Amino acid sequence: MISRIQLHSDGPAFSRLVWGAYRITNDPERREIAHIARMVDTCLDAGITTIDHADIYGGYRVEALFGEMLASRPDLRNRIELVTKCGIALVSPARPDHHIKHYNSTPEHIRQSLENSLRNLKVDHIDLLLLHRPDPLLDGAEVAGVLEALVAEGKTRAVGVSNYTPSQFALLQSKLSIPLVANQIELSVSHTAPLHDGTLDDCQRLGVLPMAWSPLAGGRLFDPEKGNPRLVELLTDLSARYNAGGPAAVALAWLLRLPSKPLPIIGSTDPQRLQTLTRAGEIELELQDWFRVLETATGRPVP
Amino acid sequence: MISRIQLHSDGPAFSRLVWGAYRITNDPERREIAHIARMVDTCLDAGITTIDHADIYGGYRVEALFGEMLASRPDLRNRIELVTKCGIALVSPARPDHHIKHYNSTPEHIRQSLENSLRNLKVDHIDLLLLHRPDPLLDGAEVAGVLEALVAEGKTRAVGVSNYTPSQFALLQSKLSIPLVANQIELSVSHTAPLHDGTLDDCQRLGVLPMAWSPLAGGRLFDPEKGNPRLVELLTDLSARYNAGGPAAVALAWLLRLPSKPLPIIGSTDPQRLQTLTRAGEIELELQDWFRVLETATGRPVP
Amino acid sequence: MISRIQLHSDGPAFSRLVWGAYRITNDPERREIAHIARMVDTCLDAGITTIDHADIYGGYRVEALFGEMLASRPDLRNRIELVTKCGIALVSPARPDHHIKHYNSTPEHIRQSLENSLRNLKVDHIDLLLLHRPDPLLDGAEVAGVLEALVAEGKTRAVGVSNYTPSQFALLQSKLSIPLVANQIELSVSHTAPLHDGTLDDCQRLGVLPMAWSPLAGGRLFDPEKGNPRLVELLTDLSARYNAGGPAAVALAWLLRLPSKPLPIIGSTDPQRLQTLTRAGEIELELQDWFRVLETATGRPVP
Repeated sequence: MISRIQLHSDGPAFSRLVWGAYRITNDPERREIAHIARMVDTCLDAGITTIDHADIYGGYRVEALFGEMLASRPDLRNRIELVTKCGIALVSPARPDHHIKHYNSTPEHIRQSLENSLRNLKVDHIDLLLLHRPDPLLDGAEVAGVLEALVAEGKTRAVGVSNYTPSQFALLQSKLSIPLVANQIELSVSHTAPLHDGTLDDCQRLGVLPMAWSPLAGGRLFDPEKGNPRLVELLTDLSARYNAGGPAAVALAWLLRLPSKPLPIIGSTDPQRLQTLTRAGEIELELQDWFRVLETATGRPVP
Repeated sequence: MISRIQLHSDGPAFSRLVWGAYRITNDPERREIAHIARMVDTCLDAGITTIDHADIYGGYRVEALFGEMLASRPDLRNRIELVTKCGIALVSPARPDHHIKHYNSTPEHIRQSLENSLRNLKVDHIDLLLLHRPDPLLDGAEVAGVLEALVAEGKTRAVGVSNYTPSQFALLQSKLSIPLVANQIELSVSHTAPLHDGTLDDCQRLGVLPMAWSPLAGGRLFDPEKGNPRLVELLTDLSARYNAGGPAAVALAWLLRLPSKPLPIIGSTDPQRLQTLTRAGEIELELQDWFRVLETATGRPVP
Repeated sequence: MISRIQLHSDGPAFSRLVWGAYRITNDPERREIAHIARMVDTCLDAGITTIDHADIYGGYRVEALFGEMLASRPDLRNRIELVTKCGIALVSPARPDHHIKHYNSTPEHIRQSLENSLRNLKVDHIDLLLLHRPDPLLDGAEVAGVLEALVAEGKTRAVGVSNYTPSQFALLQSKLSIPLVANQIELSVSHTAPLHDGTLDDCQRLGVLPMAWSPLAGGRLFDPEKGNPRLVELLTDLSARYNAGGPAAVALAWLLRLPSKPLPIIGSTDPQRLQTLTRAGEIELELQDWFRVLETATGRPVP
């Protein structure tokens, strides 16, 4: 079973692997409600209870589809934690007043976006609301005010950010009386910048959980053209040695070993694939194997 | 009228647009005292009350010329706020002992430079003294001591810095018992690095006012060779729509909308041009227009 | 005589120049115990009392060789301060279980490494233990625990780090109840990045002593092929003017003038060369000379 981790002292507990719902509207067959329910059941069987959304996923349609499924399966809500995001404004048929991709961090938009997410998901609260991108127009005091209000009203249990640098995080936290509990960032064996640029140092220092998007580099990791064949070979060897069921689970296990305790977000909509990947939670890579993956991924030994 | 803003809780209030005097010695016609007085009157009519200097401007000659004007117009001193800077040492006929451009952050030099500025400007105090550049030889404790003394003696009402990174700012502030109230930085629609590198995040977090030098990129913005023609076209369209009197005022309005509340420094010595630019203070760009300018300036949509 | 400096309020005092023992096993003639003792005597005559080690130097052999010398000269231990490091794991005949260069920041390894260093050096304590490299797998709380224990047990008088960025430093310090007193970094007239990237700002702010490794760029500074001939010429001119005994001493004096008070580590194993270099401690470069060296080293005037 996938282990669990507490978000700050009084926050909700999340599963160390997270299921990302962002692709559920992509494929005609897999956007059936029964299929989505089957995905969630597969998650729960493996111990994955945390499900990641954003208002904009699927061109603003993923939350509503997931909400339909939830309405058909009233047993599920209390067994899962829901994460969603707000703040990006996409050009989309669903938003005819958007003429350009932009951000909106006004208190009005943040409140409206969360209330819209609750309606779409057909729930009375979510567990974590994230600001999706750092916005150069964010007014820290104003945003802090609306985030605190939304938590006080019980609409979300906790708040956090996504793709924030250390200084952006420090700004918003400095205006808030409640902790930002998570920073959802791009992180994978082929995107290791957060190990060195202060992002993960600050997460560990402040007790903020990193959530890792594209933890398998959006599939590029195993792409014969764009990937790193030596790395795939090494991950495949390690998979055999650790009985991991495939190189992708080793790439996730590599992330799970980081001391800041990142939560990789898996976007697969194939139950069998998902099941295979959850093997990551059972593997503890040996120290030298971890560094061998790092050296092969970056192309050079540690200094 | 240009709005005003308080520098820290007990600091002086400044106008949101600042007039930069650095060019007043450049042009033979415009270096007449009557012309400079006319510039200041134009500023005051529009609500611009804050005037930016540095010891080194005009080869160490701008302050003295401005001081002559002030002496001829004793009604002005109480209606304006004076900013000056110290710490850069130029090779100049006015400083025969300088053999190389360097910095000098010794307490002796800082005190002497401010006292010299007061003599040149013919005033008994200024409103804000800035350290002009981060100096690798700056001793934080020593510099803090002299800055505190100069404020205590009433020679300047407040102190700040210029071109400082977050860590340089944190160092000096940590040794000071009074706040650094401003950081004068390069900032314009064609120099947006401070939006992302922590400089403006830290300004907003700490309540430090950014002052923006080269807010029109020193004219390069509208240079047919070096400029970005798509950006000029967009700013011109927006100028028509907002009735801004020209694209430059839109470029300034774009800065004024940042939540860290930067104060653009306008260096024009043409009263009519100055008047046109002050229209910036009356425009509030719509959210999507702001992001359209950003996208056009950087050449890519927000992520 | 080389001046001395206190590491934090209750830490040991170090000499401003440090002797680095890392090369003592390189050269067959100079690895004689009598030669090493002569080097230390030369250091002490000049006022250099601080000697820098690491577990890995000389393929894990330098500490033991130095320890043999110390055992033969019982008068020395109380006249010197010993620094060593841990955390890098080299592939080496001395460590047959290492298959890849990696880091090890587990409490078990840190304790074992220091205890091993004490045995090799044949001393009951050292004066400063440094973590040799920032480790992406470092668990701040666990490492803080073992560092505090090793100080409490008297095995080292103080702890610090090496090659740490500001965020890595802040993480570890936030978990520690005792101060990290030093950050040993690459710093020389040809590696000036720490002057601008926050490393030296943070050292000065927090009262952490920088120790400078490769303060002469590992000899490249004076390499006819890889060096900067204009810089060598300038340092040579300055050496004549300041009677410094050679350009290398001027390069060290340039570092000594930084307000964060770096301690350059000299790796020479030639007593005469060492003696010459200690002249650095008697030179105070004039301000404009300091900036002339900076300008020549970077190839551009200060901004």
